Amino acid sequence: MSAAEESAEPRDDTATPWGEVTPEAARKLLVAAVEAFAERGYHATTTRDIAGRAGMSPAALYIHYKTKEELLHRISRIGHDKALEILQAASQAPGTAAERLDGAVRSFVRWHAERHTTARVVQYELDALSDEHRSEIVELRRRTDAAVRRILNDGVEAGEFDVPDVPGTTLAVLSLCIDVARWFNAQGRRTPDEVGELYADLVLRMVAAKNR
Amino acid sequence: MSAAEESAEPRDDTATPWGEVTPEAARKLLVAAVEAFAERGYHATTTRDIAGRAGMSPAALYIHYKTKEELLHRISRIGHDKALEILQAASQAPGTAAERLDGAVRSFVRWHAERHTTARVVQYELDALSDEHRSEIVELRRRTDAAVRRILNDGVEAGEFDVPDVPGTTLAVLSLCIDVARWFNAQGRRTPDEVGELYADLVLRMVAAKNR
Repeated sequence: MSAAEESAEPRDDTATPWGEVTPEAARKLLVAAVEAFAERGYHATTTRDIAGRAGMSPAALYIHYKTKEELLHRISRIGHDKALEILQAASQAPGTAAERLDGAVRSFVRWHAERHTTARVVQYELDALSDEHRSEIVELRRRTDAAVRRILNDGVEAGEFDVPDVPGTTLAVLSLCIDVARWFNAQGRRTPDEVGELYADLVLRMVAAKNR
Repeated sequence: MSAAEESAEPRDDTATPWGEVTPEAARKLLVAAVEAFAERGYHATTTRDIAGRAGMSPAALYIHYKTKEELLHRISRIGHDKALEILQAASQAPGTAAERLDGAVRSFVRWHAERHTTARVVQYELDALSDEHRSEIVELRRRTDAAVRRILNDGVEAGEFDVPDVPGTTLAVLSLCIDVARWFNAQGRRTPDEVGELYADLVLRMVAAKNR
């Protein structure tokens, strides 16, 4: 993915990407860090590179972030909070297990397609986090996993699904959605919503949902 | 994935990883490059780092590889050739479409689990290839995709599968298998064969295979 391709596409589904990060200088630095990490990798990126992309001095960066790892942690934390929010909302929504699983897959796929640059950093740079921060993120991932597992268990109990291996199928469903961030191309044939619709159908087939 | 975890696991399913690369010095350098790229990323790795890991001098490296990109291309080429070989063999095997799809998923998953360090470099560093090398790899990926698509089309024609969107389902099947490289942990609960068995079942459900 070249920088030119990236800049041609919307980086967020909201008007202001990373709008939750304030003040504006801190937000701009975070956007610059996501771009730099996605393009060159965490280890090849310096805080000087990030400040330069944001049109700031290294000294200005240090007002907001003490280390490069603090930037990565902030990106990873916000990304994982969003993933958890999406899947918990789908898990707790009204409707049958099939309807909730359909909603979970559609919204999780849409996020990984629309925010694929961010999602790649969030998914591929976990090893660069400090031990403390990685433990925090692993706990968020455990809860994300639990939200999907709950829908599968509910579907099995209600007689809607046939799932012999609930933990393994949970892993596969999440994995299928997450990998959208690797291959999704905003100039490609399918929109995020179209991928979401296709994948929701494939996942309902995986769980052998009745009345699909 | 820490360096310690990596070193605790077999890096290949054969006695000598990258046995196709000769002479021995060239093979050692390739193994060192895979480790370095996986750990720190392509852009953060220098040819000096790679030579050092292989216990050689930078001058010794240049005898075998003129540039860092040549090393990445060699890794990517061998990895993609192997992926294509696995899926073409499965596609051309005797048996029903369901049996061939089962075999394709099992062997493709096994490779991505057993060789997850290599597979991550192969899958995540495509953008670092030169334009010429990337075109060559894209062509291999097109043929890999065609091998799976052929099995799905055969299954649909034979009345064995129900697949409304063959290109999209092909993409999803490959994506599910490839993402094993991201999450697979050799110290985890499932062996490569167990993941292959689970995934083959999930994929046969995706295509609504009769007599699964």
